[in-house]
Amino acid sequence: MAEALVRHGLEVSLVNRSPQVMVTLDYDMGALVSQELRDLGVNLYLEETLSEFETKNGKVTGVVTDKRTLPADIVVLGLGVRPNTALAAAAAIPLGEKGAIRVNERMESGLPGIWAAGDCAESFHLVSRRPFYIALGTVANRQGRVAGINLGGGYATFTGVVGTAVTKICRMEVARTGLQEKEIAALGLEHVSAVIKSRTRAGYYPGAGEITVKLLAEKGSGRLLGGQIVGLEGSAKRIDTVATALHAGFTVEEMINLDLGYAPPFSPVWDPVVTAARAVAKKL
Amino acid sequence: MAEALVRHGLEVSLVNRSPQVMVTLDYDMGALVSQELRDLGVNLYLEETLSEFETKNGKVTGVVTDKRTLPADIVVLGLGVRPNTALAAAAAIPLGEKGAIRVNERMESGLPGIWAAGDCAESFHLVSRRPFYIALGTVANRQGRVAGINLGGGYATFTGVVGTAVTKICRMEVARTGLQEKEIAALGLEHVSAVIKSRTRAGYYPGAGEITVKLLAEKGSGRLLGGQIVGLEGSAKRIDTVATALHAGFTVEEMINLDLGYAPPFSPVWDPVVTAARAVAKKL
Repeated sequence: MAEALVRHGLEVSLVNRSPQVMVTLDYDMGALVSQELRDLGVNLYLEETLSEFETKNGKVTGVVTDKRTLPADIVVLGLGVRPNTALAAAAAIPLGEKGAIRVNERMESGLPGIWAAGDCAESFHLVSRRPFYIALGTVANRQGRVAGINLGGGYATFTGVVGTAVTKICRMEVARTGLQEKEIAALGLEHVSAVIKSRTRAGYYPGAGEITVKLLAEKGSGRLLGGQIVGLEGSAKRIDTVATALHAGFTVEEMINLDLGYAPPFSPVWDPVVTAARAVAKKL
Repeated sequence: MAEALVRHGLEVSLVNRSPQVMVTLDYDMGALVSQELRDLGVNLYLEETLSEFETKNGKVTGVVTDKRTLPADIVVLGLGVRPNTALAAAAAIPLGEKGAIRVNERMESGLPGIWAAGDCAESFHLVSRRPFYIALGTVANRQGRVAGINLGGGYATFTGVVGTAVTKICRMEVARTGLQEKEIAALGLEHVSAVIKSRTRAGYYPGAGEITVKLLAEKGSGRLLGGQIVGLEGSAKRIDTVATALHAGFTVEEMINLDLGYAPPFSPVWDPVVTAARAVAKKL
């Protein structure tokens, strides 16, 4: 919304109580997205908390934060997502992570005969090995397919997610998968990480843009724990390689020899994901 | 070269003794590339064998095939690649597949102290589990890194390749990995396959182009054996997901729940690779 409105010539301010935009990224990677927003002309007010709105004749005129008052004609609120499970709770269906309906691999809830899928239901996180709540269309679709097959008398399982998400902010493609630093710390794991800068195409090929890749691995074992990518056109979907490696339980050493596609329009000879894996492996 | 010359306004004919261009693809997928070349204005003469050149005053004037004579001012020959291992053979270094130097995982040849890497050396194919010869910059680079570390007194292994290659022909992005039909048959394996058409982005998103994905799996077990992709911008590097799944030894059923990135600029909700995996799984 910030991008769309600033492109339409409006003066846009973004207030965020976190020290960064995109808290699903580590701070260093989120900073790249913040910079892109600033470059586009969005005024970023980070680590500021929304207090109240000023209004006149029933219309908003200003946004009051703990640090300032910003005049405003339009306010867009992005306050996150919570599962709407009041009905389930009233029916004594067991809830788990963040109030979402706890389900087994077949998407059946703790109350036999009651099935759940989508933004009201939990997933299982294949990297943390714990229940996980994420409200994404891809997950909802896959859960729905599994629930539907089972409801129809078939047999299907939804084995879990690895936490993949991609988006586009202005020119910048943003992707993440697996666990980020704060999630790793919360599990009591230790990690090593590396951030590398590369190009989306061979350096001499027209349209080669910068791409930054961060990979995180478990200290000692080298098991891949997560990855984040911020870069220009052709960056985001490279996260699929990292996500598939997470599904496989690969170490960063195993990722070094991944036989990924190379041709000048698509990648440097060493794919940026592999370059990042090499950088992490050196630190193990 | 055909693309570059036709774009410069030359009349271009391509003579190929195979029934398709890009023999590294199955016939049905190669046909999509042939069509793209024809659409660009390249005259394709398939299943024709080059016999000789007509010359005048030391310059070429025509190309004679087993079916016709094509007038020509310029001839470009693409005759494939063979390892230049005459020196190695003279030194009694054991050669393997297609005359390339046989090496172990550390890139040491059969003659202790002699190491090999690059277009003169064999690789190990992780899907066929057999020695394999492929002359690609990515493979050469990775082999060179491993040989260099070992020559320098370190320890590194090059575990093998899965046969990934990508290219771009006119607007069309072309990718393949793993085994194609004729390679599977040569191994005595049986397979099932599916070809699906999807879009590179959400259907409503500007620039959404057609993408065709073919996946091949072992009959019965469902083990992924290979994949091929032909499509517009944003198609080729999706092969990396298939390649990584091959490294992992996934079945097509395991690929259905891969947590791949989705956002409208990058993919339909069901990634085309996953859609293809579902289509193959239904046939097992």
